[in-house]
Amino acid sequence: MNTVTNILLDPDRLFPADQKTRNIARELYEPIANLPIISPHGHTDPSWFANNDCFPDATSLLLIPDHYLFRMLYSQGISMESLGVPRIDGGEVETDTRKIWQVFAANYHLYRGTPSSMWMDHVFHSVFGLTEPFSSETADSFYDFITAELQTDAYRPRALLDRFNIELIATTEGATDPLTHHRAIAGSPWAKRVITTFRPDDATDPDRDDFVANVAQLADITGEDTSHWQGYLNALRARRATFREFGATATDHGHPTAATADLSNSECEALFKRCLSGQASMSDAELFRAQILTEMAGMSIEDGMVMQIHAGARRNINQQVFQRFGRDKGADVPSPTNYLDGLAPLLNKYGNEPKLNIILFTLDETTYARELAPLAGHFPCLKLGPPWWFHDSPEGMLRFRQQTTETAGFYNTVGFNDDTRAFLSIPARHDVARRMDCRFLATLVAEGRLRLHDAEILANDLSYNLAKQGYKL
Amino acid sequence: MNTVTNILLDPDRLFPADQKTRNIARELYEPIANLPIISPHGHTDPSWFANNDCFPDATSLLLIPDHYLFRMLYSQGISMESLGVPRIDGGEVETDTRKIWQVFAANYHLYRGTPSSMWMDHVFHSVFGLTEPFSSETADSFYDFITAELQTDAYRPRALLDRFNIELIATTEGATDPLTHHRAIAGSPWAKRVITTFRPDDATDPDRDDFVANVAQLADITGEDTSHWQGYLNALRARRATFREFGATATDHGHPTAATADLSNSECEALFKRCLSGQASMSDAELFRAQILTEMAGMSIEDGMVMQIHAGARRNINQQVFQRFGRDKGADVPSPTNYLDGLAPLLNKYGNEPKLNIILFTLDETTYARELAPLAGHFPCLKLGPPWWFHDSPEGMLRFRQQTTETAGFYNTVGFNDDTRAFLSIPARHDVARRMDCRFLATLVAEGRLRLHDAEILANDLSYNLAKQGYKL
Amino acid sequence: MNTVTNILLDPDRLFPADQKTRNIARELYEPIANLPIISPHGHTDPSWFANNDCFPDATSLLLIPDHYLFRMLYSQGISMESLGVPRIDGGEVETDTRKIWQVFAANYHLYRGTPSSMWMDHVFHSVFGLTEPFSSETADSFYDFITAELQTDAYRPRALLDRFNIELIATTEGATDPLTHHRAIAGSPWAKRVITTFRPDDATDPDRDDFVANVAQLADITGEDTSHWQGYLNALRARRATFREFGATATDHGHPTAATADLSNSECEALFKRCLSGQASMSDAELFRAQILTEMAGMSIEDGMVMQIHAGARRNINQQVFQRFGRDKGADVPSPTNYLDGLAPLLNKYGNEPKLNIILFTLDETTYARELAPLAGHFPCLKLGPPWWFHDSPEGMLRFRQQTTETAGFYNTVGFNDDTRAFLSIPARHDVARRMDCRFLATLVAEGRLRLHDAEILANDLSYNLAKQGYKL
Repeated sequence: MNTVTNILLDPDRLFPADQKTRNIARELYEPIANLPIISPHGHTDPSWFANNDCFPDATSLLLIPDHYLFRMLYSQGISMESLGVPRIDGGEVETDTRKIWQVFAANYHLYRGTPSSMWMDHVFHSVFGLTEPFSSETADSFYDFITAELQTDAYRPRALLDRFNIELIATTEGATDPLTHHRAIAGSPWAKRVITTFRPDDATDPDRDDFVANVAQLADITGEDTSHWQGYLNALRARRATFREFGATATDHGHPTAATADLSNSECEALFKRCLSGQASMSDAELFRAQILTEMAGMSIEDGMVMQIHAGARRNINQQVFQRFGRDKGADVPSPTNYLDGLAPLLNKYGNEPKLNIILFTLDETTYARELAPLAGHFPCLKLGPPWWFHDSPEGMLRFRQQTTETAGFYNTVGFNDDTRAFLSIPARHDVARRMDCRFLATLVAEGRLRLHDAEILANDLSYNLAKQGYKL
Repeated sequence: MNTVTNILLDPDRLFPADQKTRNIARELYEPIANLPIISPHGHTDPSWFANNDCFPDATSLLLIPDHYLFRMLYSQGISMESLGVPRIDGGEVETDTRKIWQVFAANYHLYRGTPSSMWMDHVFHSVFGLTEPFSSETADSFYDFITAELQTDAYRPRALLDRFNIELIATTEGATDPLTHHRAIAGSPWAKRVITTFRPDDATDPDRDDFVANVAQLADITGEDTSHWQGYLNALRARRATFREFGATATDHGHPTAATADLSNSECEALFKRCLSGQASMSDAELFRAQILTEMAGMSIEDGMVMQIHAGARRNINQQVFQRFGRDKGADVPSPTNYLDGLAPLLNKYGNEPKLNIILFTLDETTYARELAPLAGHFPCLKLGPPWWFHDSPEGMLRFRQQTTETAGFYNTVGFNDDTRAFLSIPARHDVARRMDCRFLATLVAEGRLRLHDAEILANDLSYNLAKQGYKL
Repeated sequence: MNTVTNILLDPDRLFPADQKTRNIARELYEPIANLPIISPHGHTDPSWFANNDCFPDATSLLLIPDHYLFRMLYSQGISMESLGVPRIDGGEVETDTRKIWQVFAANYHLYRGTPSSMWMDHVFHSVFGLTEPFSSETADSFYDFITAELQTDAYRPRALLDRFNIELIATTEGATDPLTHHRAIAGSPWAKRVITTFRPDDATDPDRDDFVANVAQLADITGEDTSHWQGYLNALRARRATFREFGATATDHGHPTAATADLSNSECEALFKRCLSGQASMSDAELFRAQILTEMAGMSIEDGMVMQIHAGARRNINQQVFQRFGRDKGADVPSPTNYLDGLAPLLNKYGNEPKLNIILFTLDETTYARELAPLAGHFPCLKLGPPWWFHDSPEGMLRFRQQTTETAGFYNTVGFNDDTRAFLSIPARHDVARRMDCRFLATLVAEGRLRLHDAEILANDLSYNLAKQGYKL
């Protein structure tokens, strides 16, 4: 049994090889391994929890929606059509989910050494109890087994929430979202465990094709006159209040840069008009997003919502893929990000406000030690989000702690986010984060830089408490 | 005794956990652990050594002046007023030093895993002999004990210089400084151990409010006519000579960027006039500082002073804190720094001069492998200063060696700087640096990349010899 | 014997100290240690293999041509004249090769901890069988022994190719190169082992002094009219075909940035004219190089040649050294490089072409995790070249794997390049790469992140298969 288990999941995985440090890591990990999961930022579909329907099959659940997985296959010359990724024009794509699964299995070696293989192996082993390695040989049996299991009640979304010991999970909805599914569970016990997050980019980013339409829709939803700046702000304020009714404690802002601005009311009015007219230049759009961040910070001081800034992703850079398949198809790439100049207008206006809470995320790791830790180690409103997206990996997590702890400490960070739409991988992802934090702490203990007792407290804080505090949960 | 010791300070701290490598590290460390301290760059107050007065109390010595410490407390919402940090307007701040000390103790967990906690624990344990962890429970007894000890002769500044085995310490004074305290010890044996450093930023940075006044004061001090460019340069030249009389072997230049320039005399004259007139634009000020670096390099070739360039700190970025509390309050943040383009004018003019010695410091670690090591591994005038400020941490020191040694080797570096105003932490800081260097060397030995005999020589060089050579001491 | 061996070369060198991981590393390394060497990118002199003459002496072979070595000596104040580096003006330089060798030996401590010392020690020990450390004491005996050995048939270039087990080596020639030496071996068995690479920078970079002359020479060689754009492209196309006759499977492009462009034909024509006229501005030259990369990608789709882009070196930055000694004298420094914006025009045009193969190299390690791995982990045409130049070091190799594997995996990389003109160091360099890859894999295995069986496959792939596949060999 042990041997079989070890094939897929080493119980000491991710701990350092050095036996002394490994023992400390294990000692720190064991008491926190099964703490409830707090998932304050992610992209699961709220309809799962509202409807509690069975998931259809292995491929449709695990592969097709996961651009982490199919981008790697695409990078090696496997077309997205052959992987069943839907085309915008409704053009033909592979629909035989078993066949797609076989392609995935035949190319599973591409993921060797990547977080994707760790997460998938964890899903296969810990969620489904499969004990053999995934490969062409086992592809069919895995497909059959998983697909069959998914039809059982034990694999319905709510049952999995329980089984995964998820105390709370936040989904993410746009400013114009009707919150249908969150409304459906309102009043039920699930409403306390499944909350929304206010992500207004659809109505705050003038570069989006649907910006003008979304601003108009905001008016319909809120009854505010969104054709002028103050009415528009009021509409956003109203939406924030509605989102709070459905549990939201946080907003989220996905911006290409960290730019903020502090314009006068009349400048804002004129800029907003240009954006609505479709005459906005690229720098207008950037300035508008920049001003929005400062406005959102102001509203956070009013209403107490925690503000998340995810900066630095250049989206949809493969034009051909974007035109054929749309957003979120693995063609997003980080870019150098300047937090120091970018955040200055916001920080000069609100940086010392005791009621403001901003969580910063980066895709540019060079900013950890150079900008983010020094900023978070000074400004009372700033905390650092966990390593994000491409950096949500064992190495990325180590780099984060190694490059921020010296200047910002642990208490200017907010625990882990899984940030995922891959529901079944959530336990795997939190487990990786907990193991890596215990590993980092164990190294400090082994090197005489931290007392074991303090490390035990920190293991708890990093796995559970800081997320609850940081997101006001 | 061992157990008690281990509570605060592990004798093997900072060495790698792997026992084989740890043994090598210890073998390298033991012979160099007690070498005299050379502190060629720092910010201790020369009046301490001139007057040799007792320090007042634990809080006033260890916490209030140390922005490394209070910025972390401020980042967690503790006001600077409550920490006794003096306000510019003389407004009320906490004066009960015991109460401030208790706040510090109650929040000491914030420093877990940071260099601050290593340094403080070393001060508590090695300097004061305290064997319990610092906490709310021990706050009062620590305060009483430390404050009482500070009143004894054994804790007067000169006694500590002896006890800390500080062979030489350099303070840092501005261009217009009267050098009162260095004059006071001139001729005494202390004059050989406490030397000054010429840091002319107060009279070379047109962005400072007091620039014009300081240039005028330079005239008063030197008798040169500083209303024109050549007279101004002569005044700086004269000040360098005076500083050398008080032991200075080095200059230091704290600039926001690494820009240098090589303008004609008439361009310099015109630029200087604009700066003096108060009409200088931001780019004028930047160009002036850039030209100054080249002028200083020229003077270093004349007079043999070693030139230190500390580039890349954006200062006082929290406007509210700056207005209320002034400079050096933890609100400085590094910024991306371009050494390649920045230094080009200076290097094209003087880069191959055998008499020139420039020590480069950075706050942008991305430049270690990309720019600084390649530059120092080629230009005879360039050497690399140790990891600076935010990067003066165990991880920062590892990154420095791991990213510079491959291209610049060890002999294009200059040993350690403590760069501190926290006098009591100087032994702790040098000890961390020596341990980390021994650790890095031990890893090379354990991996068959360096012979033990060579590592022993290097441990000596990095801890002592290179600082003496690099600073011409 | 063991003891003597250990003095210079530890058989477990570069493996982690932790015994468990070391054992895995050794287990992975042993079967691949002696695989044939594939050297698909380098700068050896093809005349060596065509003429098969003896190398003259230790200094002329090992030191004088190697700017890695003499730049370090120069950085410590040793003149290049005294090292025998030839001056452009034919001015006097040291010609006593024994004396130069003694200077090298007396300063060999400068290389402690650098890759240069690993490579040299490997050459001394494994190639020449010398068992003592290199130093002033052994300088003469080393010089005599090596110089004598070099006169024997066993040290002729072809014999060394056999002894080093080099299955294939690619040299690099410019667009106007007559390929004299490759012609000389054409038809012989050596022609399959020694191939050329098409590096057209001499005729594609308008910033070069000889650009116009080289474009004219292209016309002479190919019979195309290179005074206009399409004729110029045809000439390049013709040269690519000729290079392919002499084994070339790849092109190489050494550009200061990663900029690409997608101009209209008339824009290209006008830009080309400006470049030929000598009226090109700096931005014209940059735009021209940018357009060339896109043209070369188009030709690669036509003719199947693999395209290498080496971006980010600022060349010859020491003007005085450049004027006196010319190119490649250790005065090249990396600069920040933006692949995301730079490559966009090329990728928008050709990024999804199944026949395109581009290998990207960087000197800016900050781009590994931020830009390069995300790009290579998505675009089917992109793969990542190994750590290059300053980063071809044990630490650099670790950083490469640690920062690219998570997002790009192993199969978007192409094995190792030695990129060297130091022929005798080729086995050493490949050995370092193989050891470091085995070390990285062993760490993944020890931490339960990769199965041993998969690691064994990867060790083979990284050492041999990926280079053959990536370069279509």
